[in-house]
Amino acid sequence: MKKNRHKKRHTELNTCQWRGHLWLEGRSGTFLGYGRIVLLERIRDYGSISQAAKSMEMSYKHSWDLLDSMNRQAGRKMVETARGGRQGGGATLTLAGEQAIETFWRVHRQFQSFLDRMTEELDGDVCG
Amino acid sequence: MKKNRHKKRHTELNTCQWRGHLWLEGRSGTFLGYGRIVLLERIRDYGSISQAAKSMEMSYKHSWDLLDSMNRQAGRKMVETARGGRQGGGATLTLAGEQAIETFWRVHRQFQSFLDRMTEELDGDVCG
Repeated sequence: MKKNRHKKRHTELNTCQWRGHLWLEGRSGTFLGYGRIVLLERIRDYGSISQAAKSMEMSYKHSWDLLDSMNRQAGRKMVETARGGRQGGGATLTLAGEQAIETFWRVHRQFQSFLDRMTEELDGDVCG
Repeated sequence: MKKNRHKKRHTELNTCQWRGHLWLEGRSGTFLGYGRIVLLERIRDYGSISQAAKSMEMSYKHSWDLLDSMNRQAGRKMVETARGGRQGGGATLTLAGEQAIETFWRVHRQFQSFLDRMTEELDGDVCG
């Protein structure tokens, strides 16, 4: 009976799991974090900064502040904007923008693997 | 000259670094996080929950809520309290409390190593 209880405790390990947040810190605070990466992805999807911001319920000014912060810290533009034309311009990601997205999710995947490994290695005693 | 500039960029990699937060999630939200672990350490140091809470500018009620949350999720007590006596009781960590601290910092050290490794592997292009 005691043995069973012990076994049960160990098979219930997934009641506990390691979780975390990750960001890339630059010269002036956060350079790349979840919100910034999703903003870049939305700009890629919508071809428009204002529509990307709107889809995230973010003010246009705030989205520009984030882009400006990323541009300055990367030392190059993340997004290329074209003014004028019938559509009133548009926005496309630069190579730097694409690289930022790729780098962030690549490290994020490794971070998730790390967290999963730590969860698997958890001593059943810790989480009751 | 161009070569030098390229080299400079690569030696300046530490302008950018991966950072993160880590916590152990239990059945009902956070089980172990920075604040909870520091609370346990202060209780160990002060031998008193109220003094530990005070040292963290935390209300006594909040410290009890955190302890209660940890006790419930661990399925055992983190802190043993002795009532009465000249000192008005006292508080000592249980083995479970000690294990929680040890487990948290052990994983935290590995997390820091992971972040450092990711920072070393950063492509210099990303951070400008």
